[in-house]
Amino acid sequence: MRRCVVSMAAESRMEWSVRGVILDMCGVLYDSGEDGGHAIPGSVAAVKRLMDSGLIVRFCTNETQNTRERFVQKLRKMGFDISVSHVFSPAPALTHILRERRLRPHLLVHDDLMPEFDGLDMSSPNCVVIGDAADKFSYQNLNEAFRVLIGLEEPLLFSLGRGRYYKETDGLKLDVGVFMKGLEFACGVRAEVVGKPAAAFFRTVLEDMSLQPHEVVMIGDDLVNDVGGAQSCGMKGIQVRTGKYSCPGETCGISAKPRMCSCEMSEEFTKI
Amino acid sequence: MRRCVVSMAAESRMEWSVRGVILDMCGVLYDSGEDGGHAIPGSVAAVKRLMDSGLIVRFCTNETQNTRERFVQKLRKMGFDISVSHVFSPAPALTHILRERRLRPHLLVHDDLMPEFDGLDMSSPNCVVIGDAADKFSYQNLNEAFRVLIGLEEPLLFSLGRGRYYKETDGLKLDVGVFMKGLEFACGVRAEVVGKPAAAFFRTVLEDMSLQPHEVVMIGDDLVNDVGGAQSCGMKGIQVRTGKYSCPGETCGISAKPRMCSCEMSEEFTKI
Repeated sequence: MRRCVVSMAAESRMEWSVRGVILDMCGVLYDSGEDGGHAIPGSVAAVKRLMDSGLIVRFCTNETQNTRERFVQKLRKMGFDISVSHVFSPAPALTHILRERRLRPHLLVHDDLMPEFDGLDMSSPNCVVIGDAADKFSYQNLNEAFRVLIGLEEPLLFSLGRGRYYKETDGLKLDVGVFMKGLEFACGVRAEVVGKPAAAFFRTVLEDMSLQPHEVVMIGDDLVNDVGGAQSCGMKGIQVRTGKYSCPGETCGISAKPRMCSCEMSEEFTKI
Repeated sequence: MRRCVVSMAAESRMEWSVRGVILDMCGVLYDSGEDGGHAIPGSVAAVKRLMDSGLIVRFCTNETQNTRERFVQKLRKMGFDISVSHVFSPAPALTHILRERRLRPHLLVHDDLMPEFDGLDMSSPNCVVIGDAADKFSYQNLNEAFRVLIGLEEPLLFSLGRGRYYKETDGLKLDVGVFMKGLEFACGVRAEVVGKPAAAFFRTVLEDMSLQPHEVVMIGDDLVNDVGGAQSCGMKGIQVRTGKYSCPGETCGISAKPRMCSCEMSEEFTKI
């Protein structure tokens, strides 16, 4: 089994002039699954070494199947020493936007994420919010969200991330971006993405770290949302070979995803 | 209630030099619904007048919730004198393609459409076919189709039409194009569309009519799939004001679809 790149980076003492590290979580620290998932070998110790090295470490996830609190609890049970205030996820960022713009959302999100929206006015919705609703992405629920959108003078769609798919222990699953694209097409609108790879989302994390982009490296398993998003903000990006990354010919747990393969690029990142 | 534009066209004796008419069906001849739907007032008589006038009349639908035979039976019950051989729908066109290219489909289509694919080899699928599967567009079924696609060396996706939504008697519903867009995004592929507005589909109908495009007018309620598709083939296109057409400020049965409104264009078409 491949070793966690976080471990490799920590061992090489981050041989470039960075002062902070942002870590993606699913696919980098752990693999998710129906049973809650499990830590990737070496990742618990690697995160500890990164923290002990004096680097400022933050965690940045597009996880929208849990409240941030419950999500961190899950990670702590796996052995990670992570505090809630160091984890950045889309839902708290969105609720801030909704309150600021006095918006009343129609929600199509995972049941376990619902508490994040407690206290918001949801009467006569004037926008639609979609997250990784998983099994709640039924035809009926998608129709309902569509009808709210198409009934608005100016359809307003928020998407908690724009991922294509992710890996669970029982295989690949469609992510929120797929349903975002569908609703965009149905209504002729462009969704506002909250979460990676949106620059605004990364900037919030950088502000919290009190660091400039060139001082920070982002480590993730998604070439577009993690690496690309970070690079477009001026940060360095490293793609790990765990999680959704796959390479034909390698034994990596995923049957085939030829369109995502980028051996050369990944080699370059892991060499940094 | 607005009168059927087919009726108006028949009355004005098609005052331009055309020898044939292609009619869309849902939203032009009838409104669909859970109960099977009902004929739009005036449309049964109008179709009869068109046929009696000596024009060559064909029917072209993206209906994929029924076999062509059962679909025509339904229309005949509403009073339309239509024969199966004059109706062109995507599924028979696709099965022809699948046999010709020796493809083994994984199907995500409506249960009632399944008999159209009888006799095809579906073992070890090497392509995915989606139609208007309605309630079968569950997260689980979409994941299954996605996994087949992403597991192929060259993902091959066929879509029976690319509509955004349609009107049933109980409201608007998402059409196959929405899920096509989602799967395209997930796999980084472009679907092959069989049905309107694909030029190949219209050309099959024209061949059957033994007419040139400039001799034929297409009448439909969808600006992109009917009117646009016909025009890009060199035919004339008329958009009706029944079915999914809506105009803010008019009582047309649909709450609001501002992005589809095109009063000026429609006025022009109905004046032809």
